[in-house]
Amino acid sequence: MKRLDHLAVCIRDLEAALRVWRDGLGLEVVGIEDLPDRQVRVAMLRIGDTRIELVQPLSDASEVSRFLARHGEGLHHVAFAVEDVDGALAAATASGAVALPGAGQAGAGGTRVAFLHPRSANGVLVELVEQGRER
Amino acid sequence: MKRLDHLAVCIRDLEAALRVWRDGLGLEVVGIEDLPDRQVRVAMLRIGDTRIELVQPLSDASEVSRFLARHGEGLHHVAFAVEDVDGALAAATASGAVALPGAGQAGAGGTRVAFLHPRSANGVLVELVEQGRER
Repeated sequence: MKRLDHLAVCIRDLEAALRVWRDGLGLEVVGIEDLPDRQVRVAMLRIGDTRIELVQPLSDASEVSRFLARHGEGLHHVAFAVEDVDGALAAATASGAVALPGAGQAGAGGTRVAFLHPRSANGVLVELVEQGRER
Repeated sequence: MKRLDHLAVCIRDLEAALRVWRDGLGLEVVGIEDLPDRQVRVAMLRIGDTRIELVQPLSDASEVSRFLARHGEGLHHVAFAVEDVDGALAAATASGAVALPGAGQAGAGGTRVAFLHPRSANGVLVELVEQGRER
């Protein structure tokens, strides 16, 4: 476990959110991209050796829309950069954490990712991210 | 805005939480302390240049007990290390963020802290922390 990769915040309106996080808090925007598969727009803001990701739904089909409808805007998950997602997941589950379905699947940019069930990690949705060669 | 200082998670049972975050995720515990004024026990776990703080209430008088009763366990706030808490707060409020009462007050270890209202920061309770000379 070497680095906090990112912290994701679900938001409704990226332009409004950037006024707070970029203009108000002074975070540097290092990228904004649309992910059509997930129906989200993501702004990545750098802070030290980690990032805050502001995630806005592009349609009601997005899982983020469902999160917003249930919880409103707010923190969504915490991602840790790991060397080996299978090994990290094995260590976590050996200590009682429960993996969500799809663990080890391909993520964006050649990554491999796994999620821990929030009920097994003190209410926090934890992502494990193994960086691919592209990054 | 130079560094994510810490990410706080409200928990019910520190020993159980350490099995996940320390043993399962491999985070290094750099300190555990009781803060009688706030009626909490805090475990600080290092990850890269930031920390995760697991915060357990020591009594029902703790604000953390109220959070747990309302929301259950989960992410509580995100803290940014700033050079000058007054300047950082002025920039944030100029962009529409709203400060909670008590901004600029003394925190632990010679720090000065301010909080932004979650409703003005996309549902996220944001803390600004100016490090004191003791740290």
